Amino acid sequence: MAKSLGELASTLGCEIVGDPDASISAVATLALGQPGAISFFANQAYSEALRNTKASAVILAEENVSLSPTNAVISSNPYLAYARIAEILYPKDLFEGAIHSSASVAKSASVAQSAYVAAHAVIDEHCVIGEHVYIGPGVVVGPRCNIDAQSRLLANCTLVQDVSIGKRSTIHSGAVLGSDGFGNAMSDSGWVKVPQVGGLSIGDDVEIGCNSTIDRGAIGDTIVGNGVRLDNLIQIAHNVVIGEHTAMAGMTGIAGSTVIGKRCMFAGQTGSVGHITICDDVVIGAQSYVSKDIREPGIYVASFPAEKDKDWKRKVVRFRNLADLFRRVGKLEKGKQ
Amino acid sequence: MAKSLGELASTLGCEIVGDPDASISAVATLALGQPGAISFFANQAYSEALRNTKASAVILAEENVSLSPTNAVISSNPYLAYARIAEILYPKDLFEGAIHSSASVAKSASVAQSAYVAAHAVIDEHCVIGEHVYIGPGVVVGPRCNIDAQSRLLANCTLVQDVSIGKRSTIHSGAVLGSDGFGNAMSDSGWVKVPQVGGLSIGDDVEIGCNSTIDRGAIGDTIVGNGVRLDNLIQIAHNVVIGEHTAMAGMTGIAGSTVIGKRCMFAGQTGSVGHITICDDVVIGAQSYVSKDIREPGIYVASFPAEKDKDWKRKVVRFRNLADLFRRVGKLEKGKQ
Amino acid sequence: MAKSLGELASTLGCEIVGDPDASISAVATLALGQPGAISFFANQAYSEALRNTKASAVILAEENVSLSPTNAVISSNPYLAYARIAEILYPKDLFEGAIHSSASVAKSASVAQSAYVAAHAVIDEHCVIGEHVYIGPGVVVGPRCNIDAQSRLLANCTLVQDVSIGKRSTIHSGAVLGSDGFGNAMSDSGWVKVPQVGGLSIGDDVEIGCNSTIDRGAIGDTIVGNGVRLDNLIQIAHNVVIGEHTAMAGMTGIAGSTVIGKRCMFAGQTGSVGHITICDDVVIGAQSYVSKDIREPGIYVASFPAEKDKDWKRKVVRFRNLADLFRRVGKLEKGKQ
Repeated sequence: MAKSLGELASTLGCEIVGDPDASISAVATLALGQPGAISFFANQAYSEALRNTKASAVILAEENVSLSPTNAVISSNPYLAYARIAEILYPKDLFEGAIHSSASVAKSASVAQSAYVAAHAVIDEHCVIGEHVYIGPGVVVGPRCNIDAQSRLLANCTLVQDVSIGKRSTIHSGAVLGSDGFGNAMSDSGWVKVPQVGGLSIGDDVEIGCNSTIDRGAIGDTIVGNGVRLDNLIQIAHNVVIGEHTAMAGMTGIAGSTVIGKRCMFAGQTGSVGHITICDDVVIGAQSYVSKDIREPGIYVASFPAEKDKDWKRKVVRFRNLADLFRRVGKLEKGKQ
Repeated sequence: MAKSLGELASTLGCEIVGDPDASISAVATLALGQPGAISFFANQAYSEALRNTKASAVILAEENVSLSPTNAVISSNPYLAYARIAEILYPKDLFEGAIHSSASVAKSASVAQSAYVAAHAVIDEHCVIGEHVYIGPGVVVGPRCNIDAQSRLLANCTLVQDVSIGKRSTIHSGAVLGSDGFGNAMSDSGWVKVPQVGGLSIGDDVEIGCNSTIDRGAIGDTIVGNGVRLDNLIQIAHNVVIGEHTAMAGMTGIAGSTVIGKRCMFAGQTGSVGHITICDDVVIGAQSYVSKDIREPGIYVASFPAEKDKDWKRKVVRFRNLADLFRRVGKLEKGKQ
Repeated sequence: MAKSLGELASTLGCEIVGDPDASISAVATLALGQPGAISFFANQAYSEALRNTKASAVILAEENVSLSPTNAVISSNPYLAYARIAEILYPKDLFEGAIHSSASVAKSASVAQSAYVAAHAVIDEHCVIGEHVYIGPGVVVGPRCNIDAQSRLLANCTLVQDVSIGKRSTIHSGAVLGSDGFGNAMSDSGWVKVPQVGGLSIGDDVEIGCNSTIDRGAIGDTIVGNGVRLDNLIQIAHNVVIGEHTAMAGMTGIAGSTVIGKRCMFAGQTGSVGHITICDDVVIGAQSYVSKDIREPGIYVASFPAEKDKDWKRKVVRFRNLADLFRRVGKLEKGKQ
């Protein structure tokens, strides 16, 4: 979809420096930008790419306008402005309401006229599928699920049962929502499964990444707040509560009944033990895990970045010999007295 | 399903203190318990919730009976008793044997009359599906699989081939069992795949979590013992052997040919290298990994919990300067002589 | 499939010591080898198993021939020779081109006559499926995907859209390719999704493990080079580039826009931050993560193997008391002057 630069900028309420009639039909990186493309500059590391870009326009902050070799869109948050322009240039596929002839929809399920149910999808008993909802191919929606307007379940994801999803949320392919949590009681003859009888409630404007898993509550619901963003391969255990606009990068795992605040950010491969509370505005660094309540906003971390094998091994030897060093220092101190 | 408290208690062989005619129809947490609900008390942290509970009954140990503000069921293992009562109150969905018209069942497959095969499920050649087995929607059972009585394969899980599953086991949605292991030999022109020709054998009363993956053996079988419990997003490589009643929390990964004993417990995001042996009754702490044989039962760990960014960074600087500290102490010792 | 030992050896260009007419119909470990089986010896730890093997033949290096109690195939790379012999003994299932009656193929899609499309598979608009391609049951191939000759998409994997796959590659069950990357810009009212408009390009002779996820590019493509091997449950973020013949073990995660060289090896549960470059021939040790550019080939690591709880806790206490130790040593040094 081609738009004039002026039209794009005015939709966002941004000023432009340059030609408002420039035609924009694509987004591109600064390095790969070609005529017709718009790019953005938000990181000084890309200054040279900016200087050499062949894109027809660049979104950048006011103080950087002089660096632009081409038409400029001025924004205090160039990445956000880029996201909004990309949304206009690449509108979501439209679809008309329909149920594919190979889909299997239970009699007690209610599917809005404007919803689309793709090939080989299954909608089980007592489900309610709202207006303009998209159910992709191979998706299974188990009994008693409720999908509100404009949400999208992409190919081959699974809602096991008793899942409620708000408006405009997207569940990516392969995700599994509403499965039994990991509850086991030890008996004389081995583990006894603890029946999981709660549900899973997901808010509006949520994204759940591919092959992520979110269990239903053991008793009561697991809860994912409005605007939460989960990347791929994330595990959220039973009765976890995730506050609004919290974001988690790939492979994060949260154990049961932990309550996480709003606007938190978890880096990749992070984790948390169960039954703790993490307050609002907490950031967890890469490959770190949380072992107890966090009551103060801020950055929390505990991981070592990889270094040369030999260097690391030497450090580990010293770490192992710390007891000896403490002893030696104690002895020196005594000798002094 | 509603039962009298007396009936529930006598099924478990437990004494009650209070009204045996109290009607119980649901489980609840202490905090959310309402009339008609039964809860349990197994953790002193919830003493106040116990004192204030509105549940009609609470399961607890004899020494805590006096703390209960309501009818009490006495058990030396309240969580186990809770599991058994929940099982009675929330019986598994019953189903009648049937094959959904959209399922695809190979001619050479044998499906018991009492088994259920759901919409869009696929059963490949030479499979044997036992009595009262449940095959969920979208499940693919590849060639030569054998599913014994009362086991359940939930929606969209996949058995690639040559998988045998015992009685009463549950494979959760999205799990992939019996796939090729990761075997590659380097040649002059790149990796050559090592054909994987073994199978996968899963015992009775096993649970495999959502989106977990268990590879078939390279030569000979991968083996998961009776009563094993695996959480979501777990990876078990080719020719691993997992002993009976071992439990693993989410995101654990076990590399090839490792042999794990009975009743072990792995916390979340743990791992093990391949080709080692871990004895019975070993516990691995959160985010830790095992690098060599473990021959003695006990708890093993090596991870640091996250702390404030600044505090952690200071510790890392000291850790990096240990060489210098060792030198300085050596110098002091020399100076003393 | 049975072959004579002489025929197998000559196909590989290997010498044999012993009976060229020995009939070989299976592979086996040294320990479980029976008459008719061929095994290999590549690790001195298995010397005793070699001495006692009942296999009809063993592949080993010239210097170990005298250790063999049975017919020997001589190879300087016994594991590679084993892989090639196993390939001959266990040929891949052949199939004839066909589209299962329950598959759903879009009108604008092109499927080669020799390709097979299994039950309940879905091929969306504008896809091109090449010669002898295998599309397994429940697979979803979204719009505009291109699968080149002899590649195989196993049961229940998903190509979301705009994925191109080269020749002879295998995508294992449950993998999700070409999904939206994790791009979010913060606005006053919460996260705004950054439209992901790139594709995913996968080379020839690639394997992608079960339930792994590879996102399409945000702008421009995510790229997986020829001969790359990815194990199960791996996450590759948007715009990552993986060089030829790089291999990653299970649960590795690579963040966005990172560029990885050729022939690298990542152990299990490893990771990398985004926007960095890792050169050719780098090895990353178990559970380690890379935080900045690596410009020199070699082994990089930073993780502690699990040890007894008590021992580890003592080390952690000392680690936490390092500040004090540095102070004490400083004081001693001052006292000396």
